[in-house]
Amino acid sequence: MATPPSTLFASDNASGVHPVLMEALLAANTGHALAYGDDEWTKRAITRFRDLLGSDAEIVFAWGGTGANVVGLQCLLAPWQAVICPDTAHIAVDECGAPERFTGCKLIEVPTGDGKLLPVHIERHLHLLGDEHHVQPRVVSITESTEFGTLYLPDEIADLAEFAHSHGLLVHLDGARLANAVAALDVDLRSLVVETDVDVLTFGGTKNGMMYGEAVVFLRPELAANAHFVRKQAGQLPSKMRFVSAQFEALLADDLWIRNADHANRMTERLAERMASVPGVDVVRPPEVNSLFARVPAAAIRPLQDWSFFWVWDAAESMVRWMCSFDTTEDDVDCFVEGVAEIVAAYR
Amino acid sequence: MATPPSTLFASDNASGVHPVLMEALLAANTGHALAYGDDEWTKRAITRFRDLLGSDAEIVFAWGGTGANVVGLQCLLAPWQAVICPDTAHIAVDECGAPERFTGCKLIEVPTGDGKLLPVHIERHLHLLGDEHHVQPRVVSITESTEFGTLYLPDEIADLAEFAHSHGLLVHLDGARLANAVAALDVDLRSLVVETDVDVLTFGGTKNGMMYGEAVVFLRPELAANAHFVRKQAGQLPSKMRFVSAQFEALLADDLWIRNADHANRMTERLAERMASVPGVDVVRPPEVNSLFARVPAAAIRPLQDWSFFWVWDAAESMVRWMCSFDTTEDDVDCFVEGVAEIVAAYR
Amino acid sequence: MATPPSTLFASDNASGVHPVLMEALLAANTGHALAYGDDEWTKRAITRFRDLLGSDAEIVFAWGGTGANVVGLQCLLAPWQAVICPDTAHIAVDECGAPERFTGCKLIEVPTGDGKLLPVHIERHLHLLGDEHHVQPRVVSITESTEFGTLYLPDEIADLAEFAHSHGLLVHLDGARLANAVAALDVDLRSLVVETDVDVLTFGGTKNGMMYGEAVVFLRPELAANAHFVRKQAGQLPSKMRFVSAQFEALLADDLWIRNADHANRMTERLAERMASVPGVDVVRPPEVNSLFARVPAAAIRPLQDWSFFWVWDAAESMVRWMCSFDTTEDDVDCFVEGVAEIVAAYR
Amino acid sequence: MATPPSTLFASDNASGVHPVLMEALLAANTGHALAYGDDEWTKRAITRFRDLLGSDAEIVFAWGGTGANVVGLQCLLAPWQAVICPDTAHIAVDECGAPERFTGCKLIEVPTGDGKLLPVHIERHLHLLGDEHHVQPRVVSITESTEFGTLYLPDEIADLAEFAHSHGLLVHLDGARLANAVAALDVDLRSLVVETDVDVLTFGGTKNGMMYGEAVVFLRPELAANAHFVRKQAGQLPSKMRFVSAQFEALLADDLWIRNADHANRMTERLAERMASVPGVDVVRPPEVNSLFARVPAAAIRPLQDWSFFWVWDAAESMVRWMCSFDTTEDDVDCFVEGVAEIVAAYR
Repeated sequence: MATPPSTLFASDNASGVHPVLMEALLAANTGHALAYGDDEWTKRAITRFRDLLGSDAEIVFAWGGTGANVVGLQCLLAPWQAVICPDTAHIAVDECGAPERFTGCKLIEVPTGDGKLLPVHIERHLHLLGDEHHVQPRVVSITESTEFGTLYLPDEIADLAEFAHSHGLLVHLDGARLANAVAALDVDLRSLVVETDVDVLTFGGTKNGMMYGEAVVFLRPELAANAHFVRKQAGQLPSKMRFVSAQFEALLADDLWIRNADHANRMTERLAERMASVPGVDVVRPPEVNSLFARVPAAAIRPLQDWSFFWVWDAAESMVRWMCSFDTTEDDVDCFVEGVAEIVAAYR
Repeated sequence: MATPPSTLFASDNASGVHPVLMEALLAANTGHALAYGDDEWTKRAITRFRDLLGSDAEIVFAWGGTGANVVGLQCLLAPWQAVICPDTAHIAVDECGAPERFTGCKLIEVPTGDGKLLPVHIERHLHLLGDEHHVQPRVVSITESTEFGTLYLPDEIADLAEFAHSHGLLVHLDGARLANAVAALDVDLRSLVVETDVDVLTFGGTKNGMMYGEAVVFLRPELAANAHFVRKQAGQLPSKMRFVSAQFEALLADDLWIRNADHANRMTERLAERMASVPGVDVVRPPEVNSLFARVPAAAIRPLQDWSFFWVWDAAESMVRWMCSFDTTEDDVDCFVEGVAEIVAAYR
Repeated sequence: MATPPSTLFASDNASGVHPVLMEALLAANTGHALAYGDDEWTKRAITRFRDLLGSDAEIVFAWGGTGANVVGLQCLLAPWQAVICPDTAHIAVDECGAPERFTGCKLIEVPTGDGKLLPVHIERHLHLLGDEHHVQPRVVSITESTEFGTLYLPDEIADLAEFAHSHGLLVHLDGARLANAVAALDVDLRSLVVETDVDVLTFGGTKNGMMYGEAVVFLRPELAANAHFVRKQAGQLPSKMRFVSAQFEALLADDLWIRNADHANRMTERLAERMASVPGVDVVRPPEVNSLFARVPAAAIRPLQDWSFFWVWDAAESMVRWMCSFDTTEDDVDCFVEGVAEIVAAYR
Repeated sequence: MATPPSTLFASDNASGVHPVLMEALLAANTGHALAYGDDEWTKRAITRFRDLLGSDAEIVFAWGGTGANVVGLQCLLAPWQAVICPDTAHIAVDECGAPERFTGCKLIEVPTGDGKLLPVHIERHLHLLGDEHHVQPRVVSITESTEFGTLYLPDEIADLAEFAHSHGLLVHLDGARLANAVAALDVDLRSLVVETDVDVLTFGGTKNGMMYGEAVVFLRPELAANAHFVRKQAGQLPSKMRFVSAQFEALLADDLWIRNADHANRMTERLAERMASVPGVDVVRPPEVNSLFARVPAAAIRPLQDWSFFWVWDAAESMVRWMCSFDTTEDDVDCFVEGVAEIVAAYR
C-alpha cells in the first residue's frame, strides 16, 4: 500500500503552528509582562485588527473557537432571547451545547441544504416576537465560510443583515474559517463584514496556523460594553495573553492570514481536480474553500481511515470530508489521491 | 531612582515560558496530529501524571485555571448543591462568578483569617443537609498553597477530607500553585493529595513556567465519567491539544515542576529576609511559598507601582503582595529591595 | 349577530374551577396546617395517586404546567444532555425556553407531522452518543394527548419506551391533558403510563377543572431522589400546599378527572359533527380529544375572534383551534356553531 | 397537658385563607375568562396597585415568594453582576439557591446582626466595580420587615437607596411581609417604598391571608420591559390568573391588607407581653412586627413542638421563633402562653 501523505486531510486543526507564528511566540518570551492583556503585544495586535476593521472595532481575545462564540453571543443576548442559525452550524452541532448552557438561550435551528441562512429562514420565526410564551429571536448567526465549505457573497450577508436589523435582530458571524472566505472571494475583510453590517464576529486563528487563540470582534463598540466580564466569567481570559497577541500580530502582518488560507484553498482545488478522475470517488461539489466533500464506497471508509485518518461527514450517505491546511503540500495532495485511488479500487 | 529589576514581582503569571517548555513546544510542532487529545503527546503526559498520582487517576487538560476549576467542580455537583470554601478562595473572589454561573451552585464562603479551611467551618453548615429550602453542601474546596501563601500540612488535608467524607461531602483542591506547596513542604505529591484522600484537584501549569494549560485530576476515576462532556461544554477543550500536553510532559520530567517552584519559593525567602531590614516595610509574616505580604506607607504604593508594578492586596490595610517566579534572579530580588527601600524612605 | 356562547372555545384554561373542587378548597380552609406539604391533605392526595399508579410512585405537586415540566425534566438531566421531542411540543414552543434555561440542556426538536414521536425519530440522533463535541440524548419527551389533539395508543408508548430504554434514554410524558387521553382511549391510567414503562410524567390539573396545581409523578422512585430540592429551586413549591392537595384529592375521587375530560371530549365531538356541515368551515381531522382544528376563510378570523375569542393555530394555513372544557354545554356548542356559520357566510 | 391553641405559631403561612379573600375566589369563578392575565380581575387589581404606588408602577403577579424574588431580580441583573444582601436574607438562605441558579449571579452576603443592611455594608464591596476578575455589584436587596422581625424606617431605606443609586446600584425590596411593616410603622406604602426610591419590590399576599399569589412591582417602569418574558421563563405565569388577581383586588380594598397585618402584629405584641412573665422563657427583644424570638430551655424544645409545632431559629442558641397570623386570636395567644409555661416549667 502507498505511504500515507505526511500531513492529514482530517481537519485544518490537525496542522501544527506556522513557522512565522512560532517565531513570534519565541520572540514574545522575553522576560516579564503583566498578565490578562495589559501588555504591548496585545496593544499592537488590537491595532492591527483596527487597521483591518475600523478604529471603532472592539476586540477581545479568547482561548478557542467555542469560547469565542460563547463570549460573542453572550454579549448580545438575554436568556429569554434566541439565536436563529442553520441546523448545521458549529454552535448548534459541535459545541456540546455550550452556547445554550452559557447564555440560557434557545437556538432556533433552521434546515438550509447548503449551510447558508436566507432572510426567508428568519422571516418564518418573526411571529414569535412579543409573545411571552415564546423565546424572542434576537440574533442571527451565520458561519463564513460555512461548515459545508460554502460561501456567502458580500451582498448575501448585507441582505441578511439588513433584513435582520429591520426587525430588531443582530448579526453574529462565526469566522473560524473567515480567512478562507476572504481568500476565496478575493475581497477585503472590510467589504465582507463591515460594509455588510455584521455586528459581532469571531475571527479564527487556530485553524489558520496559530497554536491557539481566537478573536471576538465587536463592530458596534457599544455591544462590547460587558465583554471583559463575560470573557472572564466564561473562562476565556488567557493569563499570559501576550502569547495569543503575538501570534495575532504576526498573523495579520503581511497578509499572512490570507496567504495561509489561500494556500489551503488552492491545495483543496488541486485535491478536487485530482479526485475527480478517481473511479469510485464522487466529488459532491467543487470546493469553494479548503474542504472537499466526496462519496466513497462505504466499505472503503474504514480502510481509508486506517491508512490516513479523516472524518465521515454523513455515514448514511457514505460521504466524507477532506480538508487542506496552510502546510499541505502538492506532494501531500498527490500522494493522498494516489492512496485513496488504490484503496477505493479494492472496494468498488 | 534605581533601575527596576528585569522581572516583575506582580505575579507568577507575569513570567514567560520556561526555556525547557518552549523547547518542548518547538519539538511538538512536527507535522500533523489529530486534534482534541487523540495524539501521542497527550498519551505520554497522562502517563506521567499517573506515574505521580496513581494509575487510577483520570486527567483532562484545560486552557486556564478558572476553566479547570469550573470543569472539576461541575463534575462533582448538581445545581441545588453547594461548595464550602474560604471567602478568600480564588473560585469565590477572582473568577468573576464563573463557578456559580456554570454549575448553578452557591458558594458558601467562610471567613478563615489565613485562607485555610478547618472541619469546624464545615460543621456549621451541616444542618442545611436534607432541608429542601436550603442548598445542599456537597463539595469542600481548598487551595494548596492558599491565596494567602499559607500551607495545609498533609495531616490537615487528611483530617478535613475525613470529616468531609464522613458527612457525604467531596474534596476539591485548587492546585494552581500546588507545586510551590510540594516544594515547600518537601513531601511527594502522592502523600499530599492521594494519601490524604482528595477527590479532585487542579494541577497548575501556567504559574509554574508553562505558556498555558492546566490539568484537572480525578483521583476517584468514577467522578470523571462525564468530564469530557463537561470540558467541551465549558469551552475548555484545546483543539491542538498536543501543545498543552507537550508542555506538561516536559514539566513533569526530571522534577522540573518542583525545581521551578522551589526556586520561586527560595527567591521569596531571600526577598523576605532582605525586606525585613528595610525601614517602613513591615513583612506581615514569613513567606511559606512564593508570595510575600507586607505593609508599606500608603503614600508610597503608587510611586512603587510606577517604578515596578505589583498588586495591592488590601488597600485599607496598606498591604501589598509581592511574588517571585521560576525566573526571578537573586539580582532581581536585590535590585527590587534596593528600589523599594529608596522609594519608601521618601514617604515615611 | 348571534349572542356569543357563555363559555369560550379558546382553551381549556379559560374555564373556571369545577364546583366540586371549589368545595374542596372551601373545606380545606379550616384553621392552620403546616406549610410546604406537611399536612393531611397532601398525604391523602398522594395516596390517591398511588392508588392509581402504584405504591412505588413518587409524587410532588407544583404550581403550573411549565414548572411541572421543568421539575420533572431536571430530575432526569445533567446539563450536557439533551431531550428529544416533537418540534411542536409545549416544552419546545410554549414555555419561553424555561426547560433549556433551567436544565441547561438542548431540546432536539423533531418534525413529526402529527405531534407524535416514533422510534425512528430517536434513532437518527443516537450517533451523537459518546462524542464529546455533541450534547448527549438522555430523555425522550412525549405529550399525551398531544398539542395537535392526537393520541398515542398504549402500544405506541410502550414501543417508544422500549426503544428509548434499550439505548439508555428515559421517557418523560407531558400529561397536561392526560385525562383527555385516558377518557378517549377508554383505558385505565396504569395501562397507559405504568405498563408502557414511562419514567416520569406530569399530571395536569389546571386544564381539567382545578384552579391551579399540577403533579409530577416519578414512576421509578429513584428518579425522585432530588425532586424536593429541584422543586424548591425551580420556584415551584407552594407554601399553602393543602390547597393544591385538596383539589387533587377531590379530582381523583369518583373518577371526576375522567368524567371532566370525557365531557370535554364529547362536546368537542359534537362541535366537530356540527361544524362539518357549516359551509366555509373545513374540519382538518376528526377530533380525538378536546381540541378541534379547522380551516376558515382568512378574512373571517378576526370577526370571529371579536365575537367569541379563540386562537389561530397556523396563520399561513388559515387554521384555527377550538377547545372544549369540562363546563362547555351542548347549548354553548350549538350557539357557537350557529354564530360561526353566520359570520363565515359573510366572508366566503 | 393543656389543649394546644387552635392556630399554630409556626409561621404566618400555616394560616388558611381570609374569608373575604375566599369570597373573592368564589365570586371570580363565573364562567370563562382568557388565561394569563387578559381578564377584568387582573386589570382591576393592577389599578388598585397603581392607586397605592403611582400610575407609573408596573405590576406582574407570580405564584409564590421565591418566584417573585427571582422574577424581580432577574429583571435587574446580567449574570456577571451581583446582589449585596444580608446573610440572613430569604433569598440567600431559604430559596435553595433559586436566585443564583436562575440569574447566574452571585449573592454577596453580608453579616448584619439584625438583618438590616447599611450603606457601610455596600461600601466595602464597591472596590469590585470595574475589575473583570470580580462579579459586579448591581443590586442591593433588603427585606421589609426583615427575617429577624426588625424594621427599616423610611429614612433608612431612603439613605440606603441614595447611597446605592449614587454608585450605580439598584434597590430590590423583598416585601413578603411588607404589610406588617406598613402597619407597624403606621406609614403609607408610598412614603415607605416610593418616596424612598426603591426600584423593585415584591408585595406579599400569601403570608397575609391569600391562598397563593405574590406581586412584583416595578417602580421604574423601564425595568419591567422584559418582565413578562422573565416571568414565563421562570415558570411563574399563572394560567387562570383571575384567581390571583381577584384575591389581590380584595386584599387591597378597604385596607384589608393592613388590617390583617396589624392584627398579626398586635397578637404578637400580646404574645410578647404574656411570655415576658413566663419563667424560663427569655424574649430576645420586643417584637416589631409579627414574629417573636425567644430562648427556651433546650430540652423543652422538642416537647413544646410536639404539643404545638413551631420552628427553631438557632439551635446553638436554643432560640425559637413564634409567629402570629391574621387569624390568630387572643385566646390562641393566651392558650399558647399557658401551655408553653407549663411545659417549660418541667424542663428548667
